[in-house]
Amino acid sequence: MNSFVFCNPTRIFFGEGAVKNLAGQLSNYGNNVLLAYGRGAIKKEGIYDAVMKILRDCGKNVFELSGIMSNPTAAKVREGVAICKENKIDLILAVGGGSTIDCCKAVAAGSLIEGDFWEEFFEKHMVPDKAIPIGTILTMVGTASEMNGNAVITNEEKKIKGSFFSPASYPRFSILDPTYTYSVPQYQMVSGICDIMSHIMEQYFSGTDDNISDDLSEALMKSIIKNARIAVKNPRDYTARSNIMWGATVALNGILGCAKTQDWEVHQIEHQLAAYYDDIAHGMGLAAVTPAYFRYIYKSGLNKFRQFAVNVWGVSPENKTDEQIALEGIGRLEAFFKEIGAAVSLRELGITDKGKFDEIAGSCNIKTGGYQILTRDDIKKILDECF
Amino acid sequence: MNSFVFCNPTRIFFGEGAVKNLAGQLSNYGNNVLLAYGRGAIKKEGIYDAVMKILRDCGKNVFELSGIMSNPTAAKVREGVAICKENKIDLILAVGGGSTIDCCKAVAAGSLIEGDFWEEFFEKHMVPDKAIPIGTILTMVGTASEMNGNAVITNEEKKIKGSFFSPASYPRFSILDPTYTYSVPQYQMVSGICDIMSHIMEQYFSGTDDNISDDLSEALMKSIIKNARIAVKNPRDYTARSNIMWGATVALNGILGCAKTQDWEVHQIEHQLAAYYDDIAHGMGLAAVTPAYFRYIYKSGLNKFRQFAVNVWGVSPENKTDEQIALEGIGRLEAFFKEIGAAVSLRELGITDKGKFDEIAGSCNIKTGGYQILTRDDIKKILDECF
Repeated sequence: MNSFVFCNPTRIFFGEGAVKNLAGQLSNYGNNVLLAYGRGAIKKEGIYDAVMKILRDCGKNVFELSGIMSNPTAAKVREGVAICKENKIDLILAVGGGSTIDCCKAVAAGSLIEGDFWEEFFEKHMVPDKAIPIGTILTMVGTASEMNGNAVITNEEKKIKGSFFSPASYPRFSILDPTYTYSVPQYQMVSGICDIMSHIMEQYFSGTDDNISDDLSEALMKSIIKNARIAVKNPRDYTARSNIMWGATVALNGILGCAKTQDWEVHQIEHQLAAYYDDIAHGMGLAAVTPAYFRYIYKSGLNKFRQFAVNVWGVSPENKTDEQIALEGIGRLEAFFKEIGAAVSLRELGITDKGKFDEIAGSCNIKTGGYQILTRDDIKKILDECF
Repeated sequence: MNSFVFCNPTRIFFGEGAVKNLAGQLSNYGNNVLLAYGRGAIKKEGIYDAVMKILRDCGKNVFELSGIMSNPTAAKVREGVAICKENKIDLILAVGGGSTIDCCKAVAAGSLIEGDFWEEFFEKHMVPDKAIPIGTILTMVGTASEMNGNAVITNEEKKIKGSFFSPASYPRFSILDPTYTYSVPQYQMVSGICDIMSHIMEQYFSGTDDNISDDLSEALMKSIIKNARIAVKNPRDYTARSNIMWGATVALNGILGCAKTQDWEVHQIEHQLAAYYDDIAHGMGLAAVTPAYFRYIYKSGLNKFRQFAVNVWGVSPENKTDEQIALEGIGRLEAFFKEIGAAVSLRELGITDKGKFDEIAGSCNIKTGGYQILTRDDIKKILDECF
């Protein structure tokens, strides 16, 4: 088992009506609050009014950063940084999904440095050691940004979707109310489920197979599969949505990654796809790339792919070679994505030709991997395969 | 799924040689360090010298609290409180197992109040809101005290083994080096494994069965069973000891208890057994009581006991009633305890007659439970059964 360091200080308030805990948390911070959200869905759902009332009742001066897009841009981050620097913001309250929270993490850390956040965190690879405190109210499930220190930002000019991590970027508190996710369109819910599955698999498909993290990962994958099947039929099944919501958080709050070398190549490929095609829903991009990627590399991690097939998908190993078992497991994963309504090809995501694939492959800059480190040529072949 | 709050800020350094992280952590605290440990095992193993050298190299003034016994006593806590109050201790460094850490938690919180810790925390049920910071170096596995806010203390005069929880009692950091556990006698290692299994089961056997916490619990139980079988044959199997060590921490760091009502009746019974017979190893007491307890209550949680049998022990449900399946699962658990060398009766633990069982049963004061709240009479019957 590999050595590791683990620490995750985020406080989670989970359950229907969990927003009642907001006022108590607000009392820990100063008066200037930046309320950050997306393109207005929270206004239709009454969440904006409810949160604003609590902020006002607590006597906060509320500033707003709105219109945060999926795949949040560097420009949006700079807009937030300007507000924070001008108004001495004490707390950033992110209300939304991973895009909103990620944008806020970059704003929170970017506001406490002299230079430009992109240059410092993404080009000079400075790890921020301080940030304005962040609280989150989650309305879209998948990224686990509500309980980790990661943020993904797209530099639209440079066509790079990059990520940074900082110990200062863990939200101080996150409010997770499964009923807040009911109004998310089914397509987005399914995209989130694919993202969850991918997060677990990116950690699972790496290293040797002697680790309780892998056992927990298999259990969580089975749990997500089971609850996803319920939720796509009945999106208002509270139990299923609760398990998916909390499962998403556990999937990437660090606990499953302990002692794992981890992979993350599918994420790196998808990030660059999204940098070129910015309307791809992140989870759908992952679902489209994953089966082709697995079929390309499975022989390098054959034992693990065999284990995945048997333990997660219940593939019977009788009278089959390890390769047949492994491929059957990958097939089951792909069939599951299809069953819940996810994309299983890039064409389904609106990409009409392969013209940019070589350039995208060249932009991926992959340096580590779970079982095999992909070259530009490898990535190009995989993209062709999942077209 | 029930609502819950989760927060666990402890920083974990895991792996062989993890003590190298100690100096870095020490720099976050003042100069007066209380080094706390048990009855000298750490001196034989060279751990004391290694830690003392790091403390000295960091320029710390070291005070010592030694001789902390298993089932640490109120008197020992008061001894530690006196040292802390007199010497303005900035950090308590607990080197040992759960008993040492628990004692330190009571010392840490008890040193920052005016009155007596037992009266305040155990009789008036005050939840401490501050404590001297604690760091731990774990040498014995089982309690997960290294990553939670719980402490169990025995009042030897009043014959009460009680526990308290405080958010201020989470260790700031814990150093987990599996090789530090190699020298623990096999009996103690097995006792720790029973404690881990019990912690998972106390959370698992409660409420409805719709929860990812249960799925993760089943995975962790299977993982512990698998690694325990390896470790009893080869106590120096690094992978097995690593999985058991980290598995113990995950078992009771709060993550498996999310949204669970939880049980804890076996722990309450064992605590009172230990209050009357203070040489019972905690995990062995749990192993002796658990199967009898389960056979007594299983009909109240039949679905869950059935699920436990099938999912954790691989019991085939074919041509069996639910009750038969449930009982077969409990039988497999008992056989596992026997197989790894745990006690499966109170007689094996040196209790020679049933004379005190009624008094012990009366002292248990059980008010909640997973499926059935035991009366004095119930407990007496269970103790008779596992004699």
